[in-house]
Amino acid sequence: MSKIAKNSKQIDDKPTILITNDDGITAPGIAALIAVAKQYGRVVVVAPDAPQSAMGHAITIGKPLRLNHVNLFGDVEAYQCSGTPVDCVKIAVDKVLHKKPDFCFSGINHGSNASINIIYSGTMSAAMEGAIEGIPSIGFSYEDYSFDADFSLAQQVANDVIHKMISKQIPQKALYNVNIPKISIKKYKGIKACRQANAKWNENFVERLDPTGKKYFWLTGEFQNRDKGNDTDVWALTHGYASLVPIQYDLTNYDLLSNIKI
Amino acid sequence: MSKIAKNSKQIDDKPTILITNDDGITAPGIAALIAVAKQYGRVVVVAPDAPQSAMGHAITIGKPLRLNHVNLFGDVEAYQCSGTPVDCVKIAVDKVLHKKPDFCFSGINHGSNASINIIYSGTMSAAMEGAIEGIPSIGFSYEDYSFDADFSLAQQVANDVIHKMISKQIPQKALYNVNIPKISIKKYKGIKACRQANAKWNENFVERLDPTGKKYFWLTGEFQNRDKGNDTDVWALTHGYASLVPIQYDLTNYDLLSNIKI
Repeated sequence: MSKIAKNSKQIDDKPTILITNDDGITAPGIAALIAVAKQYGRVVVVAPDAPQSAMGHAITIGKPLRLNHVNLFGDVEAYQCSGTPVDCVKIAVDKVLHKKPDFCFSGINHGSNASINIIYSGTMSAAMEGAIEGIPSIGFSYEDYSFDADFSLAQQVANDVIHKMISKQIPQKALYNVNIPKISIKKYKGIKACRQANAKWNENFVERLDPTGKKYFWLTGEFQNRDKGNDTDVWALTHGYASLVPIQYDLTNYDLLSNIKI
Repeated sequence: MSKIAKNSKQIDDKPTILITNDDGITAPGIAALIAVAKQYGRVVVVAPDAPQSAMGHAITIGKPLRLNHVNLFGDVEAYQCSGTPVDCVKIAVDKVLHKKPDFCFSGINHGSNASINIIYSGTMSAAMEGAIEGIPSIGFSYEDYSFDADFSLAQQVANDVIHKMISKQIPQKALYNVNIPKISIKKYKGIKACRQANAKWNENFVERLDPTGKKYFWLTGEFQNRDKGNDTDVWALTHGYASLVPIQYDLTNYDLLSNIKI
């Protein structure tokens, strides 16, 4: 009896870890993150049923959502949701877990979310929603966009950062944007704490005619780093480091606020 | 000849003002903003062809966009776009204006975008996209959600703030989140520069069965202000002021960054 009690206590002590992403529940990157996270606790997955890249912090208010159990990750409980990445976090807390998880990890994204990409990224917005809920949260992104990418280095970095958060080697009550460079493990130099680089995308819409002769536009763009600093996430990624940027969601420009006289 | 030259110089000197929103091009709020802004320069409208509330900073990368000229606002040049509010700003710069406008104004939103609402708001994300492009930008939102709302006070505030930005009474190279309270003009006390209140939405999904017996979920929520300060946008709105919050898009948590040792 005491043994059973002890075992169930041990099970209760394991943290509950919510995992989501924006590439969709079938993306290799989320499977790579689940494999890492399940070493640290009870993993529950709620992720979009289709790709939702560049959805930013969109939520679904004008139509209903579907949520279905899926059997994709062995013994890991998983659900696909018809909503956005942020919807997935909200419905996970309210309707799947019925409580806040201990941690929320998002990714591993196929493609960088360094610098201004954080604003457009569904993966980082899901992690930010976790943080707004008060859940220690991390978004992981890997510079390689390919679905055939080798996630070995990304998994190594995710494991390092998750271990540091759970063991409180870095502040736990926080939100981090972690990006992993597309380099060989031999060239990898470690994790660097950084600030967000000041960069933007210069849009360039491709203009074409559809089969009925009507004009359409397709968004493309070119990344422009306007930041010369060697303390940014973009600098870190181009110099062999994984970048770790602590993130906040108070968007007040306090410097400017102090200069306003009305 | 000299008179014509002088006149055309005057026309060239008029600023170009881009106007967008997230409630869609037929929403009364955008017409209210156009009526104010056209006093200050050449207004060009590019707005979603359907409501896009709560789209956050979403952009459309996986499918094409349509852009069509519409004749809704008298002599004001206007286009409806099938994309998100942020798409509208991008396509306006690249394919309509072929340059950056002098100002970008978004709204007037039907419903408050104070505090954490800025994160979810398509109206504020469109203004932020303007700011990322380097365009002085303002998002305007009115606490009244109704399409039958009386926009008199909202227009008065928008006019005040636009005048202050164009005449540089407040810093011009900036992004502002302006919210207007739902009160009578008699009770209105003026504009207050504020910080973003620390608040969140507690989600509460309504669970129902569809006509075929399958479960669906619909997002609802309750706004929770966790901030006791009397210097926030929520405080201002509940005390008879319009709130003006200067906004930035560097999400780095610098306090936390200084505490990280890796």
